[in-house]
Amino acid sequence: MTIPVNRPGFTEAERAAVYRAIHERRDMRHFLRKPVADEVLQRLLEAAHAAPSVGLSQPWRFLRITDDTLRTAIHYLVQAEVQRTAQALGERQHEFLKLKVEGIQDCSELLVAAVHDEAAETEIFGRRTMPCEMSLASVACAIQNLWLAARAEGLGLGWVSMFEPPELAAVLSLPANTKPIAVLCLGPVAAFYNAPMLQQEDWREPRPLCELIHENRWPR
Amino acid sequence: MTIPVNRPGFTEAERAAVYRAIHERRDMRHFLRKPVADEVLQRLLEAAHAAPSVGLSQPWRFLRITDDTLRTAIHYLVQAEVQRTAQALGERQHEFLKLKVEGIQDCSELLVAAVHDEAAETEIFGRRTMPCEMSLASVACAIQNLWLAARAEGLGLGWVSMFEPPELAAVLSLPANTKPIAVLCLGPVAAFYNAPMLQQEDWREPRPLCELIHENRWPR
Repeated sequence: MTIPVNRPGFTEAERAAVYRAIHERRDMRHFLRKPVADEVLQRLLEAAHAAPSVGLSQPWRFLRITDDTLRTAIHYLVQAEVQRTAQALGERQHEFLKLKVEGIQDCSELLVAAVHDEAAETEIFGRRTMPCEMSLASVACAIQNLWLAARAEGLGLGWVSMFEPPELAAVLSLPANTKPIAVLCLGPVAAFYNAPMLQQEDWREPRPLCELIHENRWPR
Repeated sequence: MTIPVNRPGFTEAERAAVYRAIHERRDMRHFLRKPVADEVLQRLLEAAHAAPSVGLSQPWRFLRITDDTLRTAIHYLVQAEVQRTAQALGERQHEFLKLKVEGIQDCSELLVAAVHDEAAETEIFGRRTMPCEMSLASVACAIQNLWLAARAEGLGLGWVSMFEPPELAAVLSLPANTKPIAVLCLGPVAAFYNAPMLQQEDWREPRPLCELIHENRWPR
Protein backbone atom coordinates (compact mmCIF):
# COMPACT_ATOMS: atom_id res chain seq x y z
CA MET A 1 0.00 0.00 0.00
CA THR A 2 1.32 3.46 -0.81
CA ILE A 3 2.03 5.58 2.24
CA PRO A 4 -0.78 8.03 2.82
CA VAL A 5 0.03 11.70 2.82
CA ASN A 6 -0.99 13.23 6.11
CA ARG A 7 -2.85 16.28 4.85
CA PRO A 8 -3.47 19.16 7.26
CA GLY A 9 -6.78 18.99 9.08
CA PHE A 10 -9.73 21.14 8.11
CA THR A 11 -9.61 24.64 9.56
CA GLU A 12 -12.48 25.84 11.71
CA ALA A 13 -13.76 27.86 8.73
CA GLU A 14 -13.57 24.86 6.38
CA ARG A 15 -15.42 22.69 8.88
CA ALA A 16 -18.11 25.34 9.28
CA ALA A 17 -18.54 25.53 5.50
CA VAL A 18 -19.17 21.78 5.28
CA TYR A 19 -21.79 21.98 8.04
CA ARG A 20 -23.32 25.03 6.36
CA ALA A 21 -23.84 23.09 3.11
CA ILE A 22 -25.31 20.16 5.04
CA HIS A 23 -27.74 22.28 7.05
CA GLU A 24 -28.73 24.74 4.31
CA ARG A 25 -29.32 22.10 1.61
CA ARG A 26 -32.97 21.97 0.58
CA ASP A 27 -35.12 19.88 -1.74
CA MET A 28 -36.02 22.65 -4.18
CA ARG A 29 -39.05 22.84 -6.43
CA HIS A 30 -38.96 26.56 -7.34
CA PHE A 31 -36.36 27.60 -9.90
CA LEU A 32 -35.28 30.57 -11.96
CA ARG A 33 -34.76 29.61 -15.56
CA LYS A 34 -31.18 30.85 -15.80
CA PRO A 35 -28.48 28.64 -17.26
CA VAL A 36 -25.90 26.61 -15.34
CA ALA A 37 -22.37 26.99 -16.74
CA ASP A 38 -20.94 23.80 -18.25
CA GLU A 39 -17.91 23.86 -15.96
CA VAL A 40 -20.15 24.12 -12.89
CA LEU A 41 -22.25 21.16 -14.05
CA GLN A 42 -19.04 19.25 -14.61
CA ARG A 43 -17.83 20.01 -11.05
CA LEU A 44 -21.16 18.84 -9.64
CA LEU A 45 -21.02 15.58 -11.55
CA GLU A 46 -17.39 15.03 -10.47
CA ALA A 47 -18.60 15.53 -6.88
CA ALA A 48 -21.25 12.84 -7.43
CA HIS A 49 -18.62 10.58 -8.96
CA ALA A 50 -16.45 10.98 -5.82
CA ALA A 51 -19.09 9.10 -3.80
CA PRO A 52 -18.36 5.86 -2.00
CA SER A 53 -19.50 2.72 -3.78
CA VAL A 54 -19.62 -0.79 -2.50
CA GLY A 55 -16.60 -2.72 -3.81
CA LEU A 56 -15.71 0.35 -5.92
CA SER A 57 -18.56 -0.66 -8.23
CA GLN A 58 -19.60 2.92 -9.18
CA PRO A 59 -23.16 1.86 -10.03
CA TRP A 60 -24.38 5.41 -10.79
CA ARG A 61 -25.39 6.39 -14.29
CA PHE A 62 -26.53 9.90 -15.24
CA LEU A 63 -28.58 11.06 -18.18
CA ARG A 64 -28.49 14.76 -18.96
CA ILE A 65 -31.79 15.70 -20.57
CA THR A 66 -31.22 18.41 -23.18
CA ASP A 67 -34.08 17.49 -25.52
CA ASP A 68 -37.15 19.57 -24.65
CA THR A 69 -39.53 16.97 -26.03
CA LEU A 70 -38.02 14.41 -23.73
CA ARG A 71 -38.24 16.83 -20.80
CA THR A 72 -41.93 17.32 -21.51
CA ALA A 73 -42.47 13.56 -21.71
CA ILE A 74 -40.83 13.16 -18.29
CA HIS A 75 -42.95 15.98 -16.91
CA TYR A 76 -46.20 14.26 -18.02
CA LEU A 77 -45.03 10.93 -16.69
CA VAL A 78 -44.41 12.53 -13.29
CA GLN A 79 -47.70 14.40 -13.36
CA ALA A 80 -49.53 11.12 -14.00
CA GLU A 81 -47.90 9.67 -10.88
CA VAL A 82 -48.77 12.82 -8.90
CA GLN A 83 -52.45 12.13 -9.72
CA ARG A 84 -52.15 8.46 -8.68
CA THR A 85 -50.41 9.48 -5.46
CA ALA A 86 -53.17 12.01 -4.74
CA GLN A 87 -55.80 9.30 -5.14
CA ALA A 88 -53.87 6.92 -2.88
CA LEU A 89 -53.57 9.60 -0.20
CA GLY A 90 -57.31 9.63 0.39
CA GLU A 91 -58.46 12.49 2.61
CA ARG A 92 -55.21 14.48 2.29
CA GLN A 93 -55.36 14.52 -1.52
CA HIS A 94 -56.56 18.11 -1.85
CA GLU A 95 -53.91 19.36 0.54
CA PHE A 96 -51.32 17.32 -1.37
CA LEU A 97 -52.39 18.67 -4.75
CA LYS A 98 -51.78 22.24 -3.55
CA LEU A 99 -48.11 21.50 -2.95
CA LYS A 100 -45.54 22.11 -5.66
CA VAL A 101 -43.78 18.75 -5.77
CA GLU A 102 -41.49 19.20 -8.77
CA GLY A 103 -39.86 21.84 -10.95
CA ILE A 104 -39.19 19.81 -14.09
CA GLN A 105 -40.40 22.46 -16.52
CA ASP A 106 -38.81 25.35 -14.62
CA CYS A 107 -35.30 24.20 -13.77
CA SER A 108 -32.40 24.89 -16.09
CA GLU A 109 -30.83 21.41 -16.02
CA LEU A 110 -32.66 18.12 -15.82
CA LEU A 111 -30.77 14.95 -14.92
CA VAL A 112 -31.93 11.39 -14.39
CA ALA A 113 -29.93 9.21 -12.00
CA ALA A 114 -30.09 5.45 -12.38
CA VAL A 115 -28.69 2.39 -10.63
CA HIS A 116 -26.75 0.14 -12.96
CA ASP A 117 -26.47 -3.37 -11.52
CA GLU A 118 -23.89 -5.76 -12.83
CA ALA A 119 -24.12 -9.44 -12.07
CA ALA A 120 -20.43 -10.27 -12.49
CA GLU A 121 -18.68 -12.25 -9.75
CA THR A 122 -16.52 -9.30 -8.76
CA GLU A 123 -19.71 -7.51 -7.79
CA ILE A 124 -20.16 -9.76 -4.74
CA PHE A 125 -17.82 -7.52 -2.68
CA GLY A 126 -19.80 -6.01 0.18
CA ARG A 127 -23.16 -6.80 -1.35
CA ARG A 128 -23.58 -10.57 -1.30
CA THR A 129 -26.40 -10.30 1.21
CA MET A 130 -27.94 -7.01 0.01
CA PRO A 131 -27.11 -6.69 -3.70
CA CYS A 132 -29.81 -4.25 -4.80
CA GLU A 133 -29.77 -2.25 -1.58
CA MET A 134 -26.05 -1.54 -1.66
CA SER A 135 -26.00 -0.38 -5.28
CA LEU A 136 -28.93 1.89 -4.61
CA ALA A 137 -27.24 3.25 -1.47
CA SER A 138 -24.13 4.11 -3.50
CA VAL A 139 -26.18 6.05 -6.03
CA ALA A 140 -28.02 7.86 -3.23
CA CYS A 141 -24.65 8.90 -1.76
CA ALA A 142 -23.60 10.21 -5.19
CA ILE A 143 -26.79 12.26 -5.41
CA GLN A 144 -26.22 13.64 -1.91
CA ASN A 145 -22.70 14.73 -2.92
CA LEU A 146 -24.12 16.46 -5.98
CA TRP A 147 -26.78 18.10 -3.83
CA LEU A 148 -24.29 19.51 -1.31
CA ALA A 149 -21.95 20.70 -4.05
CA ALA A 150 -24.89 22.39 -5.76
CA ARG A 151 -25.79 24.17 -2.52
CA ALA A 152 -22.21 25.41 -2.24
CA GLU A 153 -22.45 26.69 -5.83
CA GLY A 154 -25.67 28.52 -4.94
CA LEU A 155 -27.76 26.15 -7.06
CA GLY A 156 -30.92 24.38 -6.00
CA LEU A 157 -31.64 20.72 -6.57
CA GLY A 158 -34.84 18.74 -6.20
CA TRP A 159 -35.11 14.96 -6.15
CA VAL A 160 -38.33 13.87 -7.82
CA SER A 161 -39.26 10.25 -7.10
CA MET A 162 -42.83 10.33 -8.32
CA PHE A 163 -42.75 8.16 -11.42
CA GLU A 164 -43.22 4.55 -12.42
CA PRO A 165 -39.64 3.29 -12.93
CA PRO A 166 -40.52 1.02 -15.89
CA GLU A 167 -42.26 3.93 -17.67
CA LEU A 168 -39.31 6.27 -17.19
CA ALA A 169 -36.87 3.52 -18.16
CA ALA A 170 -38.80 2.97 -21.40
CA VAL A 171 -38.79 6.68 -22.30
CA LEU A 172 -35.00 6.79 -21.78
CA SER A 173 -34.30 3.41 -23.49
CA LEU A 174 -32.55 2.13 -20.36
CA PRO A 175 -31.26 -1.45 -20.46
CA ALA A 176 -32.88 -4.09 -18.23
CA ASN A 177 -30.26 -3.88 -15.47
CA THR A 178 -30.48 -0.07 -15.15
CA LYS A 179 -33.23 1.36 -12.96
CA PRO A 180 -34.01 5.08 -12.67
CA ILE A 181 -34.35 6.28 -9.07
CA ALA A 182 -34.31 10.06 -9.39
CA VAL A 183 -35.33 12.86 -11.70
CA LEU A 184 -33.07 15.70 -10.56
CA CYS A 185 -34.12 19.30 -11.15
CA LEU A 186 -31.12 21.60 -10.94
CA GLY A 187 -30.58 25.30 -11.34
CA PRO A 188 -30.48 28.78 -9.89
CA VAL A 189 -33.20 29.65 -7.38
CA ALA A 190 -34.51 32.96 -6.05
CA ALA A 191 -33.82 31.77 -2.48
CA PHE A 192 -33.43 28.54 -0.56
CA TYR A 193 -36.28 27.51 1.75
CA ASN A 194 -35.58 28.29 5.42
CA ALA A 195 -36.74 24.81 6.41
CA PRO A 196 -37.78 21.74 4.43
CA MET A 197 -40.68 22.82 2.21
CA LEU A 198 -42.98 20.11 3.57
CA GLN A 199 -42.38 21.48 7.06
CA GLN A 200 -42.96 25.09 5.96
CA GLU A 201 -46.19 24.00 4.28
CA ASP A 202 -47.34 22.13 7.41
CA TRP A 203 -47.46 18.82 5.58
CA ARG A 204 -45.55 17.14 8.37
CA GLU A 205 -43.66 18.06 11.53
CA PRO A 206 -40.15 16.58 11.64
CA ARG A 207 -39.09 14.48 14.63
CA PRO A 208 -36.10 15.49 16.75
CA LEU A 209 -32.89 13.47 16.43
CA CYS A 210 -33.03 12.17 20.02
CA GLU A 211 -36.11 10.08 19.17
CA LEU A 212 -34.28 8.26 16.38
CA ILE A 213 -31.20 7.10 18.31
CA HIS A 214 -30.87 4.25 20.75
CA GLU A 215 -27.95 2.90 22.76
CA ASN A 216 -27.03 -0.69 22.02
CA ARG A 217 -30.25 -2.69 21.48
CA TRP A 218 -33.63 -1.43 20.36
CA PRO A 219 -35.69 -0.59 23.46
CA ARG A 220 -38.57 -2.96 24.27
CA MET B 1 -45.38 29.97 2.87
CA THR B 2 -42.97 32.04 4.96
CA ILE B 3 -40.76 34.31 2.91
CA PRO B 4 -37.31 32.76 2.51
CA VAL B 5 -34.35 34.70 3.78
CA ASN B 6 -31.91 35.30 0.97
CA ARG B 7 -28.69 34.25 2.66
CA PRO B 8 -25.38 35.35 1.15
CA GLY B 9 -23.88 32.87 -1.27
CA PHE B 10 -20.98 30.62 -0.33
CA THR B 11 -17.60 32.31 -0.61
CA GLU B 12 -14.95 30.79 -2.83
CA ALA B 13 -13.24 29.42 0.30
CA GLU B 14 -16.46 27.89 1.64
CA ARG B 15 -17.18 26.27 -1.74
CA ALA B 16 -13.66 24.85 -1.85
CA ALA B 17 -14.09 23.39 1.65
CA VAL B 18 -17.23 21.53 0.60
CA TYR B 19 -15.46 20.09 -2.44
CA ARG B 20 -12.46 19.21 -0.28
CA ALA B 21 -14.66 17.14 2.08
CA ILE B 22 -16.30 15.43 -0.91
CA HIS B 23 -13.03 14.56 -2.64
CA GLU B 24 -10.99 13.65 0.46
CA ARG B 25 -13.69 11.46 2.07
CA ARG B 26 -12.56 7.83 2.25
CA ASP B 27 -14.05 4.53 3.35
CA MET B 28 -11.71 3.88 6.29
CA ARG B 29 -10.80 0.56 7.84
CA HIS B 30 -7.68 1.60 9.79
CA PHE B 31 -8.30 3.49 13.03
CA LEU B 32 -6.48 4.83 16.07
CA ARG B 33 -8.28 3.90 19.25
CA LYS B 34 -8.65 7.44 20.56
CA PRO B 35 -12.00 8.72 21.81
CA VAL B 36 -14.44 10.93 19.92
CA ALA B 37 -15.78 13.78 22.04
CA ASP B 38 -19.51 13.56 22.77
CA GLU B 39 -20.19 16.98 21.27
CA VAL B 40 -18.44 15.99 18.03
CA LEU B 41 -20.50 12.78 17.80
CA GLN B 42 -23.60 14.86 18.40
CA ARG B 43 -22.66 17.26 15.56
CA LEU B 44 -22.12 14.31 13.22
CA LEU B 45 -25.49 12.80 14.06
CA GLU B 46 -27.16 16.19 13.60
CA ALA B 47 -25.54 16.35 10.18
CA ALA B 48 -27.00 12.93 9.35
CA HIS B 49 -30.37 14.09 10.63
CA ALA B 50 -30.25 17.09 8.24
CA ALA B 51 -30.47 14.72 5.27
CA PRO B 52 -33.31 14.85 2.78
CA SER B 53 -36.03 12.26 3.25
CA VAL B 54 -38.87 11.39 1.00
CA GLY B 55 -42.06 13.09 2.23
CA LEU B 56 -40.07 14.24 5.31
CA SER B 57 -40.33 10.66 6.59
CA GLN B 58 -36.90 10.63 8.34
CA PRO B 59 -36.61 6.83 8.08
CA TRP B 60 -33.10 6.68 9.61
CA ARG B 61 -32.54 5.04 12.97
CA PHE B 62 -29.13 4.90 14.67
CA LEU B 63 -27.88 2.57 17.34
CA ARG B 64 -24.75 3.63 19.22
CA ILE B 65 -22.93 0.50 20.34
CA THR B 66 -21.27 1.12 23.71
CA ASP B 67 -21.44 -2.45 25.03
CA ASP B 68 -18.18 -4.25 24.22
CA THR B 69 -19.85 -7.67 24.25
CA LEU B 70 -22.29 -6.46 21.63
CA ARG B 71 -19.43 -4.98 19.59
CA THR B 72 -17.67 -8.34 19.66
CA ALA B 73 -20.86 -10.13 18.60
CA ILE B 74 -21.17 -7.75 15.62
CA HIS B 75 -17.53 -8.32 14.76
CA TYR B 76 -18.00 -12.12 14.61
CA LEU B 77 -21.19 -11.76 12.62
CA VAL B 78 -19.31 -9.66 10.05
CA GLN B 79 -16.34 -12.02 9.99
CA ALA B 80 -18.68 -14.93 9.24
CA GLU B 81 -19.99 -13.02 6.22
CA VAL B 82 -16.43 -12.15 5.15
CA GLN B 83 -15.76 -15.91 4.95
CA ARG B 84 -18.95 -16.56 2.95
CA THR B 85 -18.06 -13.68 0.62
CA ALA B 86 -14.56 -15.12 0.15
CA GLN B 87 -16.03 -18.48 -0.82
CA ALA B 88 -18.47 -16.87 -3.24
CA LEU B 89 -15.64 -14.90 -4.88
CA GLY B 90 -14.03 -18.08 -6.18
CA GLU B 91 -10.57 -17.48 -7.62
CA ARG B 92 -10.14 -14.03 -6.08
CA GLN B 93 -10.81 -15.29 -2.54
CA HIS B 94 -7.18 -15.29 -1.40
CA GLU B 95 -6.62 -11.78 -2.73
CA PHE B 96 -9.85 -10.70 -1.04
CA LEU B 97 -8.91 -12.22 2.32
CA LYS B 98 -5.70 -10.15 2.38
CA LEU B 99 -7.71 -6.93 2.35
CA LYS B 100 -8.72 -5.25 5.58
CA VAL B 101 -12.45 -4.81 5.03
CA GLU B 102 -13.57 -3.49 8.41
CA GLY B 103 -12.28 -1.84 11.58
CA ILE B 104 -15.02 -2.84 14.03
CA GLN B 105 -12.65 -3.78 16.84
CA ASP B 106 -10.29 -0.84 16.25
CA CYS B 107 -12.56 2.18 15.83
CA SER B 108 -13.56 4.30 18.78
CA GLU B 109 -17.27 4.60 18.00
CA LEU B 110 -19.47 1.94 16.45
CA LEU B 111 -22.86 2.86 15.04
CA VAL B 112 -25.48 0.80 13.23
CA ALA B 113 -27.74 2.59 10.76
CA ALA B 114 -31.12 1.11 9.96
CA VAL B 115 -34.06 1.88 7.69
CA HIS B 116 -37.33 2.18 9.57
CA ASP B 117 -40.28 1.71 7.23
CA GLU B 118 -43.70 2.84 8.26
CA ALA B 119 -46.74 1.65 6.39
CA ALA B 120 -49.03 4.54 7.29
CA GLU B 121 -50.95 6.26 4.51
CA THR B 122 -48.99 9.48 4.93
CA GLU B 123 -45.91 7.52 3.89
CA ILE B 124 -47.13 7.31 0.30
CA PHE B 125 -45.67 10.73 -0.49
CA GLY B 126 -42.93 10.32 -3.10
CA ARG B 127 -42.63 6.59 -2.59
CA ARG B 128 -45.84 5.00 -3.86
CA THR B 129 -43.96 3.30 -6.71
CA MET B 130 -40.64 2.65 -4.90
CA PRO B 131 -41.42 2.38 -1.19
CA CYS B 132 -38.39 0.43 0.03
CA GLU B 133 -35.96 2.10 -2.36
CA MET B 134 -36.81 5.65 -1.33
CA SER B 135 -36.54 4.98 2.42
CA LEU B 136 -33.20 3.30 1.87
CA ALA B 137 -32.02 6.20 -0.29
CA SER B 138 -32.91 8.67 2.47
CA VAL B 139 -30.87 6.72 5.02
CA ALA B 140 -27.93 6.49 2.59
CA CYS B 141 -28.04 10.30 2.18
CA ALA B 142 -27.98 10.64 5.98
CA ILE B 143 -24.92 8.38 6.17
CA GLN B 144 -23.19 10.40 3.43
CA ASN B 145 -23.81 13.60 5.41
CA LEU B 146 -22.33 11.97 8.51
CA TRP B 147 -19.36 10.78 6.44
CA LEU B 148 -18.56 14.23 5.03
CA ALA B 149 -19.00 15.91 8.42
CA ALA B 150 -16.66 13.31 9.94
CA ARG B 151 -14.06 14.06 7.25
CA ALA B 152 -14.30 17.77 8.08
CA GLU B 153 -13.80 16.89 11.77
CA GLY B 154 -10.70 14.86 10.84
CA LEU B 155 -12.43 11.58 11.69
CA GLY B 156 -12.54 8.49 9.52
CA LEU B 157 -15.66 6.49 8.81
CA GLY B 158 -16.08 3.07 7.22
CA TRP B 159 -19.37 1.60 6.00
CA VAL B 160 -19.40 -2.14 6.58
CA SER B 161 -22.12 -3.93 4.63
CA MET B 162 -20.88 -7.49 5.07
CA PHE B 163 -23.50 -9.06 7.32
CA GLU B 164 -26.75 -10.95 7.07
CA PRO B 165 -29.39 -8.31 7.88
CA PRO B 166 -31.67 -10.75 9.80
CA GLU B 167 -28.74 -11.88 11.98
CA LEU B 168 -27.71 -8.31 12.82
CA ALA B 169 -31.35 -7.32 13.40
CA ALA B 170 -31.72 -10.21 15.86
CA VAL B 171 -28.60 -9.25 17.82
CA LEU B 172 -29.90 -5.67 18.12
CA SER B 173 -33.54 -6.66 18.84
CA LEU B 174 -34.74 -4.58 15.88
CA PRO B 175 -38.48 -4.64 15.17
CA ALA B 176 -39.75 -6.29 12.00
CA ASN B 177 -40.05 -3.05 10.00
CA THR B 178 -36.48 -1.89 10.80
CA LYS B 179 -33.67 -3.21 8.63
CA PRO B 180 -29.96 -2.62 9.32
CA ILE B 181 -28.03 -1.43 6.26
CA ALA B 182 -24.72 -0.27 7.71
CA VAL B 183 -22.27 -0.96 10.49
CA LEU B 184 -20.40 2.34 10.74
CA CYS B 185 -16.88 2.41 12.16
CA LEU B 186 -15.96 5.93 13.25
CA GLY B 187 -12.96 7.49 14.86
CA PRO B 188 -9.57 9.16 14.57
CA VAL B 189 -7.22 7.76 11.93
CA ALA B 190 -3.46 8.07 11.42
CA ALA B 191 -4.06 9.36 7.88
CA PHE B 192 -6.72 9.23 5.20
CA TYR B 193 -6.05 7.03 2.16
CA ASN B 194 -4.88 9.01 -0.87
CA ALA B 195 -7.32 7.15 -3.09
CA PRO B 196 -10.08 4.61 -2.37
CA MET B 197 -8.41 1.69 -0.58
CA LEU B 198 -9.65 -0.85 -3.12
CA GLN B 199 -7.96 1.20 -5.84
CA GLN B 200 -4.72 1.52 -3.86
CA GLU B 201 -4.75 -2.23 -3.28
CA ASP B 202 -5.34 -2.92 -6.99
CA TRP B 203 -8.64 -4.67 -6.30
CA ARG B 204 -10.34 -2.66 -9.02
CA GLU B 205 -9.63 0.27 -11.31
CA PRO B 206 -12.30 2.96 -11.15
CA ARG B 207 -14.00 4.11 -14.34
CA PRO B 208 -13.88 7.76 -15.41
CA LEU B 209 -17.00 9.87 -15.06
CA CYS B 210 -17.38 10.40 -18.82
CA GLU B 211 -18.21 6.71 -19.28
CA LEU B 212 -21.12 6.91 -16.86
CA ILE B 213 -23.00 9.86 -18.38
CA HIS B 214 -25.18 9.96 -21.45
CA GLU B 215 -27.14 12.74 -23.14
CA ASN B 216 -30.89 12.15 -23.31
CA ARG B 217 -31.53 8.46 -24.08
CA TRP B 218 -29.25 5.50 -23.35
CA PRO B 219 -27.05 4.87 -26.41
CA ARG B 220 -27.88 1.78 -28.47
